Amino acid sequence: MASLLRLPSLLAPAAARPAALLRHRGRCLHTSPARLCPAATAAGASSAAPVKMETRGGDREGQVTPRSTDFNAWYTDVIDAAELADYGPVRGTMVIRPYGYAIWEAIQDYLNVKFKETGHSNMYFPQFIPYSFIEKEASHVQGFSPELAVVTIGGGKELEEKLVVRPTSETIVNHMFTKWIQSYRDLPLMINQWANVTRWEMRTKPFIRTLEFLWQEGHTAHATLEEAEKEAMQMIDVYTKFAYEQAAIPVIPGRKSRVETFAGADRTYTIEAMMGDKKALQAGTSHNLGQNFSRAFETQFMDENGQLEHVWQTSWAISTRFVGGIIMTHGDDAGLMLPPRIAPIQVVIVPIWKKGDEKGVVMEAVASVQNTLKEAGIRVKVDDSELRTPGWKFNFYEMKGVPIRIELGPRDVKNRSVVLCRRDVPGKQGKEFGISMEPSILVDHIKGRLEEIQASLLQKAITFRDSNIVDVNSYGELKEVISEGKWARGPWSASDADELKVKEETSATIRCFPFDQPEGAKKCFMTGNPADEVAIFAKSY
Amino acid sequence: MASLLRLPSLLAPAAARPAALLRHRGRCLHTSPARLCPAATAAGASSAAPVKMETRGGDREGQVTPRSTDFNAWYTDVIDAAELADYGPVRGTMVIRPYGYAIWEAIQDYLNVKFKETGHSNMYFPQFIPYSFIEKEASHVQGFSPELAVVTIGGGKELEEKLVVRPTSETIVNHMFTKWIQSYRDLPLMINQWANVTRWEMRTKPFIRTLEFLWQEGHTAHATLEEAEKEAMQMIDVYTKFAYEQAAIPVIPGRKSRVETFAGADRTYTIEAMMGDKKALQAGTSHNLGQNFSRAFETQFMDENGQLEHVWQTSWAISTRFVGGIIMTHGDDAGLMLPPRIAPIQVVIVPIWKKGDEKGVVMEAVASVQNTLKEAGIRVKVDDSELRTPGWKFNFYEMKGVPIRIELGPRDVKNRSVVLCRRDVPGKQGKEFGISMEPSILVDHIKGRLEEIQASLLQKAITFRDSNIVDVNSYGELKEVISEGKWARGPWSASDADELKVKEETSATIRCFPFDQPEGAKKCFMTGNPADEVAIFAKSY
Repeated sequence: MASLLRLPSLLAPAAARPAALLRHRGRCLHTSPARLCPAATAAGASSAAPVKMETRGGDREGQVTPRSTDFNAWYTDVIDAAELADYGPVRGTMVIRPYGYAIWEAIQDYLNVKFKETGHSNMYFPQFIPYSFIEKEASHVQGFSPELAVVTIGGGKELEEKLVVRPTSETIVNHMFTKWIQSYRDLPLMINQWANVTRWEMRTKPFIRTLEFLWQEGHTAHATLEEAEKEAMQMIDVYTKFAYEQAAIPVIPGRKSRVETFAGADRTYTIEAMMGDKKALQAGTSHNLGQNFSRAFETQFMDENGQLEHVWQTSWAISTRFVGGIIMTHGDDAGLMLPPRIAPIQVVIVPIWKKGDEKGVVMEAVASVQNTLKEAGIRVKVDDSELRTPGWKFNFYEMKGVPIRIELGPRDVKNRSVVLCRRDVPGKQGKEFGISMEPSILVDHIKGRLEEIQASLLQKAITFRDSNIVDVNSYGELKEVISEGKWARGPWSASDADELKVKEETSATIRCFPFDQPEGAKKCFMTGNPADEVAIFAKSY
Repeated sequence: MASLLRLPSLLAPAAARPAALLRHRGRCLHTSPARLCPAATAAGASSAAPVKMETRGGDREGQVTPRSTDFNAWYTDVIDAAELADYGPVRGTMVIRPYGYAIWEAIQDYLNVKFKETGHSNMYFPQFIPYSFIEKEASHVQGFSPELAVVTIGGGKELEEKLVVRPTSETIVNHMFTKWIQSYRDLPLMINQWANVTRWEMRTKPFIRTLEFLWQEGHTAHATLEEAEKEAMQMIDVYTKFAYEQAAIPVIPGRKSRVETFAGADRTYTIEAMMGDKKALQAGTSHNLGQNFSRAFETQFMDENGQLEHVWQTSWAISTRFVGGIIMTHGDDAGLMLPPRIAPIQVVIVPIWKKGDEKGVVMEAVASVQNTLKEAGIRVKVDDSELRTPGWKFNFYEMKGVPIRIELGPRDVKNRSVVLCRRDVPGKQGKEFGISMEPSILVDHIKGRLEEIQASLLQKAITFRDSNIVDVNSYGELKEVISEGKWARGPWSASDADELKVKEETSATIRCFPFDQPEGAKKCFMTGNPADEVAIFAKSY
């Protein structure tokens, strides 16, 4: 049986990727001397440009490339302007800035609790893996070594055995599992680690595909196939719930086709998300590894009858790629749009005053409202900087995707009320005037609005998704649907070769056989043979 | 001015280290076929040994090397028997097992909140650093390159520029700070990252010194020296409070001598802990980096008068080494002893029943007590395994350092009471009978006991520390004190050469000039010259 040492990647194979390169687009947040911003020079900016300190944060927020004009340019502009990430000095690497990292922390906080509730413990494996662990399985892992970063020098000396910087941890996990597992009493063994991993990707894109990324990788060992299958399903379910309920991303959970299942797994489950440009993003995977790794690493246990058996395993992962998925699902021309449940800032308060004598009363009311919201467990920020106008701040926090803005000026103080603006409803329609400052009223109102926004973002994404998935009954129909950039769904029971032909001719791949299947008899749109299931085809990141 | 790119290490220089090697001591938790446990073969164990499944977790718990016999052997035995960590396949690497990782998580949970309260944001920098960043400063970093792991192959190709796997992040942090900082308005910039770091150590010891370890590294940039100094002091204060209040380790905070200050820092502050063998452990450091890195990386800002200035910086770190410090501070012959505030399990409940008809009532009471404690926010575990005797479980959870054990049998159920055993008070003295199961009484009682244990561990460690620090007034006295394995404290204003002489002749180094200084005039015990401060000398890890 084929044993692939590589965790079925969250990152799609290079061949299937668009030519989007991780490149510094020659833009900097700061208008600054070129010395301080090499890319500006690269882009031909004048190195004699004066330092304008008032441009902190850039004058260009709100001036990102419109999403409809160039989705990829919009994406990298938003990452830059919302201060989510920056480019590292090594090609393809990324610095995750505080605001981007806070979104990742929100993902971690939720999943970490769920992993523990479902019986997993966190631990940590070393990131250096002996090359022999990988080589041992080299015949099974075509295309794996091209993605490895290899340490050959340690302590000033050439190493006797080269070390691989983990691209995933199955090999080292199984090496240890073999040591720890003796008896059925040691099972199930269910662990998770939060770690960095390295894959030498040629075409990179911030968050979506970087040389190094952060993820969690769960690894479990069980006494039976049934238990492993149940675990793999349980974890794709945890991911699905997270995507829907926290990230407001209506992913489609399903099973990968044989072609798309990684060779180390018997089955790969996936959650597939539709991005704003209608391309699919594989946002999380869970694998039933069968006994592939336990056979390769002799991970055995004595069963209740005294028989030595190989353990049955799973692995599952979600990475910082998910942050990219959030940006590309909800963002609009004004920038990022964050679902309240994972927004680092749920409410931003912008004080407004003109005359010096107004400042005192406004700031007092702002402090009081801030305190009220904070005590109610709402993540609130006050921007009381006097270096920026209220208008600039409005744009900036829209760019940052903060769900609710509160405006508070002298007249509001007099009326004991505030003005509320929803990020997800543009213009006057999203504004509410005269919301009482009375703590219980204000808190209830804002909590209600946050829930509404959360639900509304999900509903909008569902509507978008459903209006862009088209049922097809012939290959011709599929081609047309794919050429329109949409997702095609149709009955499929054709061969792997047919699947590869579709990929070659349309650039679309089977994203999954969705768990949610239409009832009734079906005929494969390619062959006309009976088909048990519909598959979803799409171009993907 | 000297700029050392290396963060003053939590790991003392190799020269000062004991010869303790990270070695598999030829012992395995599991009595198992040698195939599954190579070290057993290495140690001459018969490969024909039968699999005894009932020895899961080992028969050898409670049979670790006595602490008084061989402290180092005791240390590695406890790590093994309490399932804190295991050896990775690559020399000098460590797998942090769930129980050990849970202690690290407790450290993280506390510090992460404190870092945010003190104005820092988490973020993430890539771990690959261009070799040129390091080479740029090579002349200043004698002895640095010997500790580097270097990636020379990526994606199957020899890299044009070699990449260093971060041993610390000053270089890459400053590279990015230079990009982000323009004006005084961008300051202070205060960030932290939780990350893995790699140092090619030759002599390793689990948790204390490993090739790869986990840590947090804080990095800040300020407009003035005063602000940087205040920040460096603030963070050593956060570490000190953590050590005292959470880990019950009475560290001595102070300033490093010039010899022990790393060349990249103007000042290094440290917390020094006395281990059970009286050796010192540098448990955390905070550095005032001055302008050393900002000059090397041209990290400049425009001040309020329009002048370009270099920023003033700090960095500070605590690592998984701290877990080793907890083991070596509180452990005893029976194993680990954990301070309740950082114990992953605060209370373990061991049900006791002999006849089958007793089981039902006992388990019902156990579930009720468990629920009561859980709801009160106490971290409680029930071990209801029928594979082990209560006696075995008593030993096992003592080995794991669980602060309180509850025993619950049929007679206790009848009396509506439980038996309580304190981990830190051996024998009958630590036992309390007839503690009411009445939720409010039980919860209050246990919370009180947990606080008592926390305070008692700290007090015991203070007493031990203070009885092993001896004031000295001559070099002869110092030699005697050090040869007894104790710490020597005495007035010091001698030269760096004298300090190195002490190290050479006694193996002791200046651990710090403690912040807490005796009043009155002092004379240097080495030279007889006036001295402003006393220094503490000790052998260290």
